[in-house]
Amino acid sequence: MDKIIECVPNFSEGRNPEKIENIVSAFRAQENVKLLDYSNDKDHNRMVVTAVGTPEAIKKAVIRSVGLAIQEIDLTKHRGQHPRIGAVDVIPFIPIKGITLSEANEIATEVGKQLAETYNLPVYLYEQSASASHRQNLASIRKGEFEGLIEKMKLPDWKPDFGPSDRHSSAGAVAVGARMPLIAFNVNLNTSNVEIADKIARKVRHIGGGLRYCKAMGVDLKEQNVVQVSMNLTDYTQTAVYQAVEMIRFEAKRYGVTIAGCELIGLIPLQAIVDTTAYYLGIENFSSKQILETHLWE
Amino acid sequence: MDKIIECVPNFSEGRNPEKIENIVSAFRAQENVKLLDYSNDKDHNRMVVTAVGTPEAIKKAVIRSVGLAIQEIDLTKHRGQHPRIGAVDVIPFIPIKGITLSEANEIATEVGKQLAETYNLPVYLYEQSASASHRQNLASIRKGEFEGLIEKMKLPDWKPDFGPSDRHSSAGAVAVGARMPLIAFNVNLNTSNVEIADKIARKVRHIGGGLRYCKAMGVDLKEQNVVQVSMNLTDYTQTAVYQAVEMIRFEAKRYGVTIAGCELIGLIPLQAIVDTTAYYLGIENFSSKQILETHLWE
Repeated sequence: MDKIIECVPNFSEGRNPEKIENIVSAFRAQENVKLLDYSNDKDHNRMVVTAVGTPEAIKKAVIRSVGLAIQEIDLTKHRGQHPRIGAVDVIPFIPIKGITLSEANEIATEVGKQLAETYNLPVYLYEQSASASHRQNLASIRKGEFEGLIEKMKLPDWKPDFGPSDRHSSAGAVAVGARMPLIAFNVNLNTSNVEIADKIARKVRHIGGGLRYCKAMGVDLKEQNVVQVSMNLTDYTQTAVYQAVEMIRFEAKRYGVTIAGCELIGLIPLQAIVDTTAYYLGIENFSSKQILETHLWE
Repeated sequence: MDKIIECVPNFSEGRNPEKIENIVSAFRAQENVKLLDYSNDKDHNRMVVTAVGTPEAIKKAVIRSVGLAIQEIDLTKHRGQHPRIGAVDVIPFIPIKGITLSEANEIATEVGKQLAETYNLPVYLYEQSASASHRQNLASIRKGEFEGLIEKMKLPDWKPDFGPSDRHSSAGAVAVGARMPLIAFNVNLNTSNVEIADKIARKVRHIGGGLRYCKAMGVDLKEQNVVQVSMNLTDYTQTAVYQAVEMIRFEAKRYGVTIAGCELIGLIPLQAIVDTTAYYLGIENFSSKQILETHLWE
């Protein structure tokens, strides 16, 4: 498999096991797709599927899963704590291997087009695929939710990118787009003073003048008697993990504070740990092809 | 594929392309085996195959390749610069994923037994699989080569582990064993004085009182005007890459020398770069399962 893309669609069904299994079956059944995870939440009444595979196979599985979701889910009867605009709320595509963000964007755009054609579903492109800057942020697209779509879609600013300018009577609309994999990374500090974590977070993050693809905040983990700088690195190919950690280290110095340890939440792309190893060991020309195991999936 | 083992057999044929292709075909043809590389050397008159796969599939391919090599190679007519004891000189098995060294050892022992039964070939177990300490070192087994085997095999110390106590008339004998993957790693120093590299190498390596699974020597790369500490790490699960590098760093300090950069030769197991990342970033409980791509081959 030369090219691998990840897809993490969010479906507005988190309670009925039969409906959930039916939707997930689209990913299970598809050759060259690997279903990594699916988890549903009853309060949110929502399910998140995580699947990886070749672009063509992922496209087929996603399009089929949307068809099944439209059959199974009626948004006029849907209640849950999580905001949503449709039976399928959002479909993010994430480049994993041998794929650039702009290729992932092409895939997202094609899927959006086909969803509109096949199911007469209004489609908003978001994040890297957005057709205008006010549509990049998913929260802006979701504002007003399914119930507010009828009015919102009449506004020129909110005409869908594909499909009709009326919401689908039972399935609403869907947001589709490409984004980089997120790295969720926390740095624990040897202090119980959360103000210090907060001050460091502000220096390190993009909006405070820090690293371009870094979001950060100070967090007080009172139960563990620890404070931490909690980060999301939104493009590890541009802002590396070691840059964020070393920057926190030198900012912490002015308070006489040191790093106690770090914590990786969830997954990290292989290239990010290759970059980390190459930096700290000073390895020249280190490539992920030199890792024995990478040959196993090629 | 839950369990992956690597096999790197060395065949005493490095000149005749048809014979080489015929031997290699055993690996190409086998399901669940991936042929990573094969390279032949005309001066050495020798070929090294690198293949990975499931234990059962690798066993089948190796046993078949030995049969083909016995058909193709006549050691009584073999000349080459590299020492060798047989048509197939040595068959190392290396645990890659989901396999312990002792499981690799079981696989090596089974293959040895079957080679003796199938082809009436004398088999010496070596390295981790050796039946006595004087047989661990491959160089000791090879001493005297094919030509010396007739006399050597009469000695009680050199009775083969499996098969007859006479050499195979055309195919000699074979050494089979399990070993850990080697990491070949060089550290370049900011000095042109090779004595310094040599002194550091002696402190870092096992025989000098240094790290248990580290072999090291000073090397003068005159053309590049660089000296380096050139290392083989023979068990990265016990002696980590970062330990060797940090030890070189603090030994170099006494000479006022710093590390200019490092160089990884060939392949490195994924777990070794996970360990490096976990050390330098201080990540608690970092697992290779958190790397996105590892899910692709499971």
